[in-house]
Amino acid sequence: MPVRPDARITLLLGGARSGKSRLAEELAARRTGRLVYIATAEAWDDEMRDRIAEHRARRGDRWHSIEAPVALAETLNALPAGTGAVLVDCLTLWLSNLMHAGRDIEAEAAGLAAALQAQIAPVLLVSNEVGLGIVPDNALGRAFRDHQGRLNQAMAAVADHVIFMAAGLPLVMK
Amino acid sequence: MPVRPDARITLLLGGARSGKSRLAEELAARRTGRLVYIATAEAWDDEMRDRIAEHRARRGDRWHSIEAPVALAETLNALPAGTGAVLVDCLTLWLSNLMHAGRDIEAEAAGLAAALQAQIAPVLLVSNEVGLGIVPDNALGRAFRDHQGRLNQAMAAVADHVIFMAAGLPLVMK
Amino acid sequence: MPVRPDARITLLLGGARSGKSRLAEELAARRTGRLVYIATAEAWDDEMRDRIAEHRARRGDRWHSIEAPVALAETLNALPAGTGAVLVDCLTLWLSNLMHAGRDIEAEAAGLAAALQAQIAPVLLVSNEVGLGIVPDNALGRAFRDHQGRLNQAMAAVADHVIFMAAGLPLVMK
Repeated sequence: MPVRPDARITLLLGGARSGKSRLAEELAARRTGRLVYIATAEAWDDEMRDRIAEHRARRGDRWHSIEAPVALAETLNALPAGTGAVLVDCLTLWLSNLMHAGRDIEAEAAGLAAALQAQIAPVLLVSNEVGLGIVPDNALGRAFRDHQGRLNQAMAAVADHVIFMAAGLPLVMK
Repeated sequence: MPVRPDARITLLLGGARSGKSRLAEELAARRTGRLVYIATAEAWDDEMRDRIAEHRARRGDRWHSIEAPVALAETLNALPAGTGAVLVDCLTLWLSNLMHAGRDIEAEAAGLAAALQAQIAPVLLVSNEVGLGIVPDNALGRAFRDHQGRLNQAMAAVADHVIFMAAGLPLVMK
Repeated sequence: MPVRPDARITLLLGGARSGKSRLAEELAARRTGRLVYIATAEAWDDEMRDRIAEHRARRGDRWHSIEAPVALAETLNALPAGTGAVLVDCLTLWLSNLMHAGRDIEAEAAGLAAALQAQIAPVLLVSNEVGLGIVPDNALGRAFRDHQGRLNQAMAAVADHVIFMAAGLPLVMK
């Protein structure tokens, strides 16, 4: 199945450095109007700061950036009419932030699903698949990958287009 | 390729919380007759007990459950005629139990393959793909993922239908 | 999409024990002429020595083996005319060797890409996808999976055929 640049809600799943952010940016850039980049990353160490700076340099001027480490649904709900496309990068850091903040993950996922369905602008969601290694040796790691798997399922259910990325190449799942 | 609910031996592969058990249950539930759920899990801690209880509540009444942490081939061979469908959930815990019990994994895999080929009822096998993370830092983890990879290959070879799951969505491989 | 045995540069991606080396060997063996196996492994422990011996026994006589733990591009560039096919097994160990040797990974990847494009004989590259587990708990592990992801993307960009393997089964991505 081919990639569909005109989908309303697109979920881009994949591993680390699989090219999912880049494809999401390319798909968003095909839209007319203002592009909104919602970053869930918080720059709390040099490694993360470097990664954010690299992503920002790659995107260029057409983009308006908003940081939403936790309040993602609220940020989506507050976007102005006429937004050309929204990219959420990424749900994995958002999940990590939610867990740090002690939030109810299922309730947050349901809130995000509702915000996505109410959103008029096309949305591209970037998320990691993290469940394909051996069982993590600590309970936090196991909880994280369970939450991530459930969150990805919930997002895939509301998305009308789901792409699995590997080595920069797309594999359309929905 | 579409999912084929009428396959004789179906292998559902995927990561943690990828929706493989749920799809296996849905495919089994389309069959007429008694459904057999072969659980390889042993409830030795609260985390596992919760997971088993959650799965059991989801399945409902049509299912007859059998625990087979190690003797999986024997359990398959002993099923009564007229069984509507059999779900084995999952081969990853079975492998873990075999390793704990010091069994010869290749011999066990060959025994299971023979039992599957002799089985008249349709069988759905659930197994994890665990080899897509970085190399585990301990020899047991490396041995586990090697065994799991070989076991998955052996099962895929006898299966007539193989589905890779991610985010609750199926990708047909065979 | 079907597997294409006649592709010029084929990248076989997958997890541990996913059958990628075996399929690469089968695809190479369909070619006429001398087959070259470029091993990036160095036998520095028993586990690795066993794995190398197992692979070598499986391949048989038609193959000429060369060890190239680091100088992979140079080895490709020095192959004699008339080579039937070249198998590089694998890029993940090569990356590991490059990191141990303190090499500039991006420069090495660019050098390899150039050598591949200059190569007349068909080439089969085996590489691991390592980014689909949870975030590694140490900086070296995180750096490794980032490098591997970028290297796989660079190779997929120059390859004319990319196959993702799971459970011994191919999924064609390009």
